[in-house]
Amino acid sequence: MYNFRTDLALERRDLYKKANNLKEEIDGIEAKEEKINDNIIVSRVEVINENGENAIGKPKGSYITIDFKNLKIAHEEEIQMASEIVTKELSQLLAKHIQKTDSILVVGLGNIYVTPDALGPKVINEIDITRHLLEYMPEVLDKDTREVSAISPGVLGTTGIETLEILKGIIDNVKPKLVIVIDALASRSIERISSSVQLADTGIVPGAGVDNARKELTIATLGVPVIAIGIPTVVEAATIAADSLTLLIQKVQNEAQSNEFLNQLQEEDKYTLIKEVLTPEEYNFIVTPKEIDSLIEKMKDIIARGINFAVN
Amino acid sequence: MYNFRTDLALERRDLYKKANNLKEEIDGIEAKEEKINDNIIVSRVEVINENGENAIGKPKGSYITIDFKNLKIAHEEEIQMASEIVTKELSQLLAKHIQKTDSILVVGLGNIYVTPDALGPKVINEIDITRHLLEYMPEVLDKDTREVSAISPGVLGTTGIETLEILKGIIDNVKPKLVIVIDALASRSIERISSSVQLADTGIVPGAGVDNARKELTIATLGVPVIAIGIPTVVEAATIAADSLTLLIQKVQNEAQSNEFLNQLQEEDKYTLIKEVLTPEEYNFIVTPKEIDSLIEKMKDIIARGINFAVN
Amino acid sequence: MYNFRTDLALERRDLYKKANNLKEEIDGIEAKEEKINDNIIVSRVEVINENGENAIGKPKGSYITIDFKNLKIAHEEEIQMASEIVTKELSQLLAKHIQKTDSILVVGLGNIYVTPDALGPKVINEIDITRHLLEYMPEVLDKDTREVSAISPGVLGTTGIETLEILKGIIDNVKPKLVIVIDALASRSIERISSSVQLADTGIVPGAGVDNARKELTIATLGVPVIAIGIPTVVEAATIAADSLTLLIQKVQNEAQSNEFLNQLQEEDKYTLIKEVLTPEEYNFIVTPKEIDSLIEKMKDIIARGINFAVN
Amino acid sequence: MYNFRTDLALERRDLYKKANNLKEEIDGIEAKEEKINDNIIVSRVEVINENGENAIGKPKGSYITIDFKNLKIAHEEEIQMASEIVTKELSQLLAKHIQKTDSILVVGLGNIYVTPDALGPKVINEIDITRHLLEYMPEVLDKDTREVSAISPGVLGTTGIETLEILKGIIDNVKPKLVIVIDALASRSIERISSSVQLADTGIVPGAGVDNARKELTIATLGVPVIAIGIPTVVEAATIAADSLTLLIQKVQNEAQSNEFLNQLQEEDKYTLIKEVLTPEEYNFIVTPKEIDSLIEKMKDIIARGINFAVN
Repeated sequence: MYNFRTDLALERRDLYKKANNLKEEIDGIEAKEEKINDNIIVSRVEVINENGENAIGKPKGSYITIDFKNLKIAHEEEIQMASEIVTKELSQLLAKHIQKTDSILVVGLGNIYVTPDALGPKVINEIDITRHLLEYMPEVLDKDTREVSAISPGVLGTTGIETLEILKGIIDNVKPKLVIVIDALASRSIERISSSVQLADTGIVPGAGVDNARKELTIATLGVPVIAIGIPTVVEAATIAADSLTLLIQKVQNEAQSNEFLNQLQEEDKYTLIKEVLTPEEYNFIVTPKEIDSLIEKMKDIIARGINFAVN
Repeated sequence: MYNFRTDLALERRDLYKKANNLKEEIDGIEAKEEKINDNIIVSRVEVINENGENAIGKPKGSYITIDFKNLKIAHEEEIQMASEIVTKELSQLLAKHIQKTDSILVVGLGNIYVTPDALGPKVINEIDITRHLLEYMPEVLDKDTREVSAISPGVLGTTGIETLEILKGIIDNVKPKLVIVIDALASRSIERISSSVQLADTGIVPGAGVDNARKELTIATLGVPVIAIGIPTVVEAATIAADSLTLLIQKVQNEAQSNEFLNQLQEEDKYTLIKEVLTPEEYNFIVTPKEIDSLIEKMKDIIARGINFAVN
Repeated sequence: MYNFRTDLALERRDLYKKANNLKEEIDGIEAKEEKINDNIIVSRVEVINENGENAIGKPKGSYITIDFKNLKIAHEEEIQMASEIVTKELSQLLAKHIQKTDSILVVGLGNIYVTPDALGPKVINEIDITRHLLEYMPEVLDKDTREVSAISPGVLGTTGIETLEILKGIIDNVKPKLVIVIDALASRSIERISSSVQLADTGIVPGAGVDNARKELTIATLGVPVIAIGIPTVVEAATIAADSLTLLIQKVQNEAQSNEFLNQLQEEDKYTLIKEVLTPEEYNFIVTPKEIDSLIEKMKDIIARGINFAVN
Repeated sequence: MYNFRTDLALERRDLYKKANNLKEEIDGIEAKEEKINDNIIVSRVEVINENGENAIGKPKGSYITIDFKNLKIAHEEEIQMASEIVTKELSQLLAKHIQKTDSILVVGLGNIYVTPDALGPKVINEIDITRHLLEYMPEVLDKDTREVSAISPGVLGTTGIETLEILKGIIDNVKPKLVIVIDALASRSIERISSSVQLADTGIVPGAGVDNARKELTIATLGVPVIAIGIPTVVEAATIAADSLTLLIQKVQNEAQSNEFLNQLQEEDKYTLIKEVLTPEEYNFIVTPKEIDSLIEKMKDIIARGINFAVN
C-alpha cells in the first residue's frame, strides 16, 4: 500500500485522489464538508465498500474530521464552541451504536511524561466519571445516569505490556457497552497539529502512523464498539523533507521538462536523500509548533468537555 | 480496634506498647533495629502469630522500615547509598517468595496529578522493564533476564474502577509470579514524610490509612505474593491536633492530678474538639512539609533504583 | 504584638475582638460584609487611624477579602463569576491610585517548583501583557491601551537576591505608575486555603506570615503605589495544634472551672507542647488540602482573569 | 551575511569552509578537536581577528563545543562524567576573566512553560547559591566562599520587558563581577538537540538564531564579562527542508549535469518551495526528538552540576 504517512482518512482520500489524478470521488468513499464558522470546518468521509477500504487503507465506517483554525489564540468562548461541536458529532456516533444509559469506558492512550504524547492521559484526568458513585452512593445521582469509567493504560515502552492486553482484562471486569479511545495521530499537515480532531467508529487499526507496534483496538479485539478520537500531534520530520522534495521535483519537471534523471528518481532516491539529512535513526524526530504545551492544554479542554457533555 | 492513624507496623507496635505500658516485646511480635550509618536506620518487625496480628492490626509477615535522615539536604551519594539499602532488603524479600528469573509486575498506586500522591506513578516511569523486549527482541538481552512489567492503574476517583478490578484483569493476561506495589502511607510522625520506606511481604490491607475505600491487594485477592513498598507522604491534620491534645491532657493530669473532668474527657471529647478546628469535612486535610516536591523527587530515585537493582 | 498567625486583616480583626471581648468595632477600624450570592462573600476592612494599625498590625488602607465557597467543585461558570468580582474590586482600588492608561507592572511572588507556593508565577504566565507590543507594533493595539508588564522574580532561597532588590532595578528601568503583587498568605482558617483573596492597597509588609525574611514591598520602598493580591495557601501546622489546645483549655475551664494549673498554663506551655508534637524544626510544615493542585489551577484562572479585565 | 541558521561557531565554521571550498583553516579562526572518550568530543574554535568575525558572524573569543553522544541512554555515571567536562572547561574560561572569589550571577533564559525552551529556568532551580547565606548567616560557610546568585528573568512574550532591561537593573543592585547566561540555541544538526553545549566568553549576540528580538547580552551592554552556555534545543523545520533540497539539487546536478534550470534555481526558489510546505507562518515550527522531555532533564543535570562545581 501507498505510505500515506497520515492517520487521517480525510488526508488519505485527498492524497489518493491527487496521486491518481481523480476528478470525481473515489469509488467506495463518500465525502462532504461543512463550514460551521470562520474557524471551524467539519469534514465527513464515509468508507462504504471494500474498494474504499483498499484505496485509503481504512476499514468501513464513519470518519469525521473537525478542524479548528487559530486555536493558538483561542479564548474561553472559542474553546467552548469547539467542544460543543465535538459533543454534537460524538453524540451522533454514540447513538448509532448504544442506548442512552449504556455504560462507557474512556481510554486515554499516550505517555504523560512526553509532551506531544500527553493528551490522552490529560483528558482522562478531566472526565466526569460516575461508575464508582453508582456503586457506592447512587442516591447522589439522577436515576438514568450513564455509567462512565476511564483509564490511562500507559505505553508499551513504560509498561512492557501491550495496550490490548491491559484493556482486555479491564473490559472483562468492567463490562462497558462501548469504548472511547483517545489517541495521538500522525498527520501530513503541520497546520493540523493539536488543532484537529478525527472521530471514527472503527476503532484503532495501526498502519502508517507513528507507533506501529501496538495491536489494533476494535470491536474484533475488544468485543464492543470502539469510537476513536484522534488528535494529530506530530508530523514526522521525514514528511516535511519528503514534501519539500516532491514539490521541487514537480517544479523542475514542469519548467525544465525533459530531465530523464528526475523521471527515474521520484520515489526510492528521495528516501536515501532524506536519510542523509535525518541521520540519528534511533531518535524519533518530529515537527511540532513551539507552542505545543499551550495547544495541548486547549485541546484537552475541547476534548474533555466534548466527551463529558456527550456521555452524561 | 485502636485507631492507630498510621500504616507503619513499627509505629503501631510502639503505640501499642505505650498505650499498654508494656516493657517487654508484644507476644506475637519480634522486633530489632540496625543502625546502618548516621543517616540510615533499618527496623524489622515480624508478626509471628495471631496475637501479634490482633495487637497491631497487621497480618503475619515481615515489615521492614528504613528511615532516611536529612533527606532534604541529601546529594547524589546519599541517595545512591539509600537506594542500595532498599535493593538489599527487597532482594531478601524476593528470595523468600520467588526464583531469580520469575516474572514480576510492579504497580505504582496514586495520582500523578496530586503532588503528595504522585510517588507511585513517578516510580513506574523509571522502572527498567524487560517484558516487551523479551517478546520482540530477546537477542538484545542476557539469557536469564527476568521479565519485568509495570503499571500505574490510577485512583478510584479518576477511573471509577477499583484498583483490584484493574489489576486482576492485567494479572490474568500478564501472569507475573509476584507483584510489587508502591503506595503512599499515612504516618504518625511528620519526620517520616517522604523520608521513610516500609517493605512488607503481606501486600496491602487497608485499615487506618488515608484511603479506606480500596480493597486489599494480597496473595488472597491477586493469586500471587504481593510485596508492598510504602512511603509515608502524609500525616492527617487530625493526628497533629489529637497528639497535641493527648500531650496536654497527660501534662495536666500529671501536674494537677485529680481532675475528674479530664479523666472522663479523654477520648470522645477530643474528637469533638478536633472537629471544631478542622471544619470543612469534605476536604482531606494533610500536614506536609513545604519541600514535598523536592523530597518526592529524591524518594522516587531511591525507590526506582532500589527496585531496578533488586529485580534485574 | 499578638501573634495572629494570619496575614488576613479580616481574621486579625476578628481575633482581636475576640481576645479583647469587644462587642463594638475596634476604634480605628471600619468593617462591612456583602453577600454576593450563596458562594461569594466580600468583606471590607478599612484601617483608618493609628489605633487601628496597632490593634491588628496592618498599615492604614483598604483590605478586601473575597471568600469563594465550594471552589473545589466549581465549574467554568462559577470561576468566571468569581473572576468578575475580583475585576470589580481591583478596578475600584486602581481608580483610587492611577489613571485609566497609567502603566502597571504585575509581580508574581513564589516558587513555581513548590506546589503550594506556585500561584504567583502561574498567574504571571496568564497575564495579557502589552508593553512589548506598544514598543514594537503599536499599530495592532487600540489607541488608549494601558502598558502592562509582568515578572516572577523567584524566591530568596533560589536566587540569593531579595525580591526588593530585584524589583527596584526593574522598576527603575520599566517605570510603572503602579505595581500589583500576587502573593501567598498564611491564614488561620483551613477553609480559606486557595479559596479566598485579599486585595489591599497597602503593599506587602511581612509580619506574622510564613516567610519573614523578605523585606516590605510598599510605596515607601518601591516609590509607586502597591496593590497586594494575597491568596491564603497554607495554614501552619502549629496553628492547628494551638487552636485545638485553646479550645480544650476553654472547655476544661468552662466545665471544671477552678483549675489553677490551667489558669497558669495558657500561653507559654502551649508552645512547649506543640514543639513536642512538631519536632523536626528545620522543616516548614504546613496544612494543606490534598486537592491543592486543582484548587490552585482554579484560583489561577480567577486571579489572572480578574486582573486582565481590570487592567485592560 | 550568509544565513547560517545555527548559533554554534563550530557549525558555522564548517558551513563556511564547505560553501567556500576551503581546504585549510579560515584566516582568523583556530580550531582543534579533542576526543575525551567514545561518547564525548570537545571542539575549540577561537576567533582571533576581524576576518574570522566576518566569516562566521561571531565576535572574537573562545567557543568550546562539547558533544555528548548517546545521551538518550546515558545513566548516572555518564551524566556525572559529562558534567565534569563542563566544569573543567567552564573553570578555565572563568579563570581567564575573574578571581577565585569574585561574585557571579547565573542567568537562565527561556520559558519554563514551553518544553523545548525550559532548560534555562530548570538549571537555575538547581544552582547552589550562596549570596543570601553570605549576607544572613556567613558563619555556616567557608571563609573564601564565592558569592553566587541566580535568576530566571522570563521571556519578552511573557513579561513585556527586554531581558537586557531586567538584567541591567539587577546587576546595578547585585554588582556581580561576571555573568553566566544559559540559553537555548538553534543548530543545524538534529543530532545535537539537547546533546551538545557551547561555552563562549563573548556573551550572547543574537543573529541567525530563533529569537532575534532580544538585544545582545555582552560586556558592552552589561558592564561585566558574560560567559554564555548555550544548548541546541531546536532545529527549525525549514532547515530540515532546505537541507533536503540542497542535497537533492547537488545530486541532480552531479548526475544529470547540464540542467540550466537548476543552475539558476539554487537559493531564492528554495525558500519559496519551503514556504509552500510550511504554511502557517504565525507558528514557530521546530524539529525535536520525541524524547525531548527526558533529554532536557539529563542536560539540566549536566549543566547545573557543571556550573556548581566550577563556581564553588
